[in-house]
Amino acid sequence: MAARRTLKIGLIPGDGIGKEVIPAGRRILEALPASLGLKFDFIDLKAGWETFQQQGVALPDETVSVLKSDCHGALFGAVSSPTTAVKGYSSPIVALRKKLDLYANVRPVKTVLTAPKPIDMVIVRENTEDLYVKEERTIQTPDGPVAEAIKRISYRASHRIATIAGEIALRRQKIRAAGAPSIHSGPLVTITHKSNVLSQTDGLFRSTARDALKDPRFASVAVEEQIVDSMVYKLFRQPEAYDVIVAPNLYGDILSDGAAALVGSLGLVPSANVGEGFAIGEPCHGSAPDIQGQGIANPIATLRSAALMLEFLNEEAAAAKIYAAVDANLEEGKLLSPDLGGTAKTEEVVQDILRRL
Amino acid sequence: MAARRTLKIGLIPGDGIGKEVIPAGRRILEALPASLGLKFDFIDLKAGWETFQQQGVALPDETVSVLKSDCHGALFGAVSSPTTAVKGYSSPIVALRKKLDLYANVRPVKTVLTAPKPIDMVIVRENTEDLYVKEERTIQTPDGPVAEAIKRISYRASHRIATIAGEIALRRQKIRAAGAPSIHSGPLVTITHKSNVLSQTDGLFRSTARDALKDPRFASVAVEEQIVDSMVYKLFRQPEAYDVIVAPNLYGDILSDGAAALVGSLGLVPSANVGEGFAIGEPCHGSAPDIQGQGIANPIATLRSAALMLEFLNEEAAAAKIYAAVDANLEEGKLLSPDLGGTAKTEEVVQDILRRL
Ligand SMILES: CC(C)[C@H](C(=O)O)[C@@H](O)C(=O)O
Ligand SMILES: CC(C)[C@H](C(=O)O)[C@@H](O)C(=O)O
Repeated sequence: MAARRTLKIGLIPGDGIGKEVIPAGRRILEALPASLGLKFDFIDLKAGWETFQQQGVALPDETVSVLKSDCHGALFGAVSSPTTAVKGYSSPIVALRKKLDLYANVRPVKTVLTAPKPIDMVIVRENTEDLYVKEERTIQTPDGPVAEAIKRISYRASHRIATIAGEIALRRQKIRAAGAPSIHSGPLVTITHKSNVLSQTDGLFRSTARDALKDPRFASVAVEEQIVDSMVYKLFRQPEAYDVIVAPNLYGDILSDGAAALVGSLGLVPSANVGEGFAIGEPCHGSAPDIQGQGIANPIATLRSAALMLEFLNEEAAAAKIYAAVDANLEEGKLLSPDLGGTAKTEEVVQDILRRL
Repeated sequence: MAARRTLKIGLIPGDGIGKEVIPAGRRILEALPASLGLKFDFIDLKAGWETFQQQGVALPDETVSVLKSDCHGALFGAVSSPTTAVKGYSSPIVALRKKLDLYANVRPVKTVLTAPKPIDMVIVRENTEDLYVKEERTIQTPDGPVAEAIKRISYRASHRIATIAGEIALRRQKIRAAGAPSIHSGPLVTITHKSNVLSQTDGLFRSTARDALKDPRFASVAVEEQIVDSMVYKLFRQPEAYDVIVAPNLYGDILSDGAAALVGSLGLVPSANVGEGFAIGEPCHGSAPDIQGQGIANPIATLRSAALMLEFLNEEAAAAKIYAAVDANLEEGKLLSPDLGGTAKTEEVVQDILRRL
């Protein structure tokens, strides 16, 4: 019998319902059939608002160094933000993306195929620059304060995000070609930007993405563009038309929440923060203080995020198992959490999905 | 008989279907009943891509100076953009907003009240700063070009946009109190920002808007906030909950296209670019090269933009006439343009609405 591959996975629940859904992510990984040849070691790590209140930092150095030196991947829950700016506090997930150079934020948004109007798209969001460089300053003027922030777009980051978008389009096509039912006939990448106003920054994103996708590897991939405002409009008018959408950081953030609205609940939508040989799975929802502690958070976004992490660690067979178990739960539609109109508790949904593995 | 007030209105059709809808805007103003005490003088003005090709400038100085010195308001159609950056060309409407200090872009999005799920909101978009200051630069690095743009948010612009948002909320409430049927029980302003990432710029927008809306005049106005990504999500999940949404320039651009998707067509959605005592009505749609010249563009966005312009020139009774005529056409639903699933030509829709005035 072949030796099992051991994957070391950091677990960063964060705040609020992060603490309720990350354990579900751990359990589904542990429950994967031994025949897949995988073993998991888990390492508990800290980050978030509660950590900030205890330790004075939202992202302890230890969390970063353990992820860097000991882990293959991680699951990140969600963090709460203070309601007004607090000196020294800033979002640990944004910092983590930069510190680990997790340059792509991959957000698949799909309904089950039996939905009345099925959609199946992935938003590939650049994850390291744009306004997220957080270089800001404020000056005082006779008319009151004026604040400025830098939006930075580089050839390098634009090229690699468009390249991974092309690769994801090809991979999706391969899975379709292997017989998976699909609403798309061929791979398509839609480049989103606002170069009609931002001719240099978004112009660079647009032209670099176009160039990257001209690589002969991507010969079978159709490429088109949408201005970001029109993209949001189209997303709601004809979501079935989109396969892979690639966007700079901020537009990607906005578009992925918009796309999530189309599938009924943020509680269904996973993401992966992807770098070279490393991936952090992260549900798209927040820490949801309004429902925390009630045991009713939807675990599906986290379960799918665990699968997505596995995909980017080249464990596609294991990922496929998790996706299929989740889809079976949704298609049956009997044990659904309240965000989907059901009455099931987190624990009941998890158990239903585990037994389908 | 009282002397009639003469309003001088600039007409800037621009490109594409702009040339088909702006004449409709002129006709509805001319057709207003004399009893309203209004007369109109129209002045034809140039701007756009065709103008750029003829004169080398997209916004001739003459257009700006005539608007400034001779006009009370204007109607702007739409302009085409070149598909790749062209030296010297930049969007004339963005320039016009800045040159005439049209600091608020007001975009009402509503369905008829008889719709299955009626919505009735106004997006109040800051119109002079944010990334639209278009201060960009590109530097060459060993890793290729890196481009930067400035996002500028000032106390002054944030304060005045929040103030006009509050005023609009009060005005809408007054109209409701006068007996207009409505889905809202009281005035609400929702402040949109991304201060969890941009603590200085969007933080300034947020805190300034909060302050402005604490003015005792706005005591009856409820105020809440939404992070922009979550705002897009909510916009699609519970659009009926929103009354007035105030946002920095770029988020306002994106949100208003998103809101337009909710009412079925951009062809229905008007806007007004509003400054001190001056307003330019502008349909939210673009120049639509795909349908230009076919006589099938929906004129309603322009007719409503003409009404909105009148509102901000303090001619509310005249505006109300136009809104009512448009709503009657939509409620009957017999003469609709193709974007609404009908087969009527622009001319037929215009005639149907004119006879209802
Ligand atoms: C919490 C926030 C900093 C974050 C972001 O803007 O990236 C969130 O919205 C997300 O999409 O992961
Ligand atoms: C054409 C473009 C420059 C413009 C904008 O971004 O403001 C348009 O999208 C709008 O909303 O009026």
